[in-house]
Amino acid sequence: MDIYQESLKFHEKKKGKIEVISRVEVKDSMDLSLAYTPGVAEPCKEIHKDPEKAYLYTRKWNTVAVISDGTAVLGLGDIGPLASLPVMEGKSVLFKEFGDVDAFPIVLDTKNVEEIVETVVRISPSLGGINLEDISAPRCFEIESKLKERLDIPVFHDDQHGTAIVVLSGIINALKLVNKDIDKIKVVVNGAGSAGTAIAKLLLSMGVKDMIVCDKVGILYDGIEEVDDAKKALAKITNSSKMKGSLDDALVNADVFIGVSAPGILKPEMVKKMNKDSIVFAMANPVPEIFPEDAKNAGVKVIGTGRSDFPNQVNNVLAFPGIFRGALDVRAKEINEEMKIAAAYAIANSISSEELTEDYIIPKSFNRDVQNKVAEAVRNAAIKTGVARI
Amino acid sequence: MDIYQESLKFHEKKKGKIEVISRVEVKDSMDLSLAYTPGVAEPCKEIHKDPEKAYLYTRKWNTVAVISDGTAVLGLGDIGPLASLPVMEGKSVLFKEFGDVDAFPIVLDTKNVEEIVETVVRISPSLGGINLEDISAPRCFEIESKLKERLDIPVFHDDQHGTAIVVLSGIINALKLVNKDIDKIKVVVNGAGSAGTAIAKLLLSMGVKDMIVCDKVGILYDGIEEVDDAKKALAKITNSSKMKGSLDDALVNADVFIGVSAPGILKPEMVKKMNKDSIVFAMANPVPEIFPEDAKNAGVKVIGTGRSDFPNQVNNVLAFPGIFRGALDVRAKEINEEMKIAAAYAIANSISSEELTEDYIIPKSFNRDVQNKVAEAVRNAAIKTGVARI
Repeated sequence: MDIYQESLKFHEKKKGKIEVISRVEVKDSMDLSLAYTPGVAEPCKEIHKDPEKAYLYTRKWNTVAVISDGTAVLGLGDIGPLASLPVMEGKSVLFKEFGDVDAFPIVLDTKNVEEIVETVVRISPSLGGINLEDISAPRCFEIESKLKERLDIPVFHDDQHGTAIVVLSGIINALKLVNKDIDKIKVVVNGAGSAGTAIAKLLLSMGVKDMIVCDKVGILYDGIEEVDDAKKALAKITNSSKMKGSLDDALVNADVFIGVSAPGILKPEMVKKMNKDSIVFAMANPVPEIFPEDAKNAGVKVIGTGRSDFPNQVNNVLAFPGIFRGALDVRAKEINEEMKIAAAYAIANSISSEELTEDYIIPKSFNRDVQNKVAEAVRNAAIKTGVARI
Repeated sequence: MDIYQESLKFHEKKKGKIEVISRVEVKDSMDLSLAYTPGVAEPCKEIHKDPEKAYLYTRKWNTVAVISDGTAVLGLGDIGPLASLPVMEGKSVLFKEFGDVDAFPIVLDTKNVEEIVETVVRISPSLGGINLEDISAPRCFEIESKLKERLDIPVFHDDQHGTAIVVLSGIINALKLVNKDIDKIKVVVNGAGSAGTAIAKLLLSMGVKDMIVCDKVGILYDGIEEVDDAKKALAKITNSSKMKGSLDDALVNADVFIGVSAPGILKPEMVKKMNKDSIVFAMANPVPEIFPEDAKNAGVKVIGTGRSDFPNQVNNVLAFPGIFRGALDVRAKEINEEMKIAAAYAIANSISSEELTEDYIIPKSFNRDVQNKVAEAVRNAAIKTGVARI
């Protein structure tokens, strides 16, 4: 079966993957008087007096917009907002199915950073949270950081943080298997786009000390000229020895390789330069940086990819539905580092030490129990860090 | 029972009046491959090649945003976007219940006309249509006309046109009862806000020749200075004899009074100056310009109000769900005058000549059959006027 042609037929038949329904029966004028005029004036007045009441009288509390400008869609690149819509509807489906969140797509007919920020701020009153999706780097960093500054609801760029959280959960479990400490490992991240940057930063928050990030130009180092500002900033907080060179050079004595880069880029001979019991996340899709079998043959102990047909799939659906569920439940003002780390631990710890093997460091995506645990951990972390409003 | 306190309890219990659901089951990785990655890439690519395919592969075809800045909400005035949200959710409920349209609120944190226009244009790619709601005059006119110019999907300000269409349907039926022709009657519209302006314009399109519009300052006439530009423009296309004076003066020998103004403003002695078999629409809410009993006692033949507890309620729900249903069904590029007039006739003609009485010129709001007839009439009018795309 050709999955692409099947998907086309499936989409045509479905006539849209999401739908808005009424939670209210309207069968007579009494129903209308309660749900609409004149009765509706009362919740309006209450919210006018106290804006927080919007969480009580409207669907704001459970509503997330999936926002994209269509500039970095799947492996398709900049296909524009309209063509990105099937992805955003799919994301909305996952929000509902795995997090019971009401999500709908808002795709934006502009690529201008300021315009995107202004637009999202203006449409934010009805929203409980904002999920940014498939926005190209480095614009996504600026958009997210400006929105976080201006809004008091969670703003989360899933391509960055969702991926980073699931990778972190995999690393937590893989380190248990190889018996190494996170503050003593050397990590090489290949690909300084949205996901790579977020992974690097989250691992630094988690205590990784020795980290090198590589991009197409090679190792990023403080003072490098030929990359954008976001990558220069990343170079400053990683690679403390200011090493220069290629990915090949970076991998010498590395414990962990994280690829969010290009197919087949990690050769067996490069893997062999890594430390014993090495860990590899090869997330290029559909063809990973190295195939699991080749990696294992070259001495890798644990390998994860982005694919569902290999063990240890790094799939964002393990993270974002539970993260938003948890954040919305406590009306969190933001999704902070502590909440992300708590989510990663919740994912990791949903595999017991008895179950944990080299081929099972990341739980299966369809285990709804994981999302519930993530939500609980995120709620607790939000309360602990003082960003919860209830 | 206090409807306001009941409504507050109702809203708290409901936890939101609308909800987004998934139309897709996600129980295994095959489901995910079809609805999301990797399969979803194919409809994305198809839409990228041909934007019209978005109607085939996404929910765009049935999606309407209910957009407000919260500046003219019910009788509450400018209470802001957040506090308007219960109304917009209620509107979305009516869209679904009466038109099977997927509608959701987007309330805007700006009152600036240009910013509103830009914002709506930017978020439009996922939308099949736009319903503007509770935006104050005269800003609403400019916003609607600029959006219509820039977008190729229906843009409809319901406070203007929904009301105008239902009033027109009432006039069509009332004229049958009193046996007068629309091109021979004198009409006085009191209140040149959003609804009054749209009513006046729609009646002109319908062939009314003798029309006077009054506002707080009295009769609007060509050359009047003390009103805004929208009202000056309205003065130019009405009141051909350039009459000056008060509402009282305007009503002499009028056949129809249409009030979208203030409680109790139409006195029995004023009604007595109107022609025999006069028709009155007194739509101030909850206290009309004149109560039906007082109007009848003063000689009015047919009276309609905005209230459900009197006969002949002018209720927009008779119009907008069917109008959008019809427009969406044929992917209309806009909602034009012909489509509005067709909708008015469909509403009027849903009452047979045998059923028609002074107390039954406008059908009941809960008769879903009316909305179906409106949708059909609107589809046909769209095709006939060349704005349908299928």
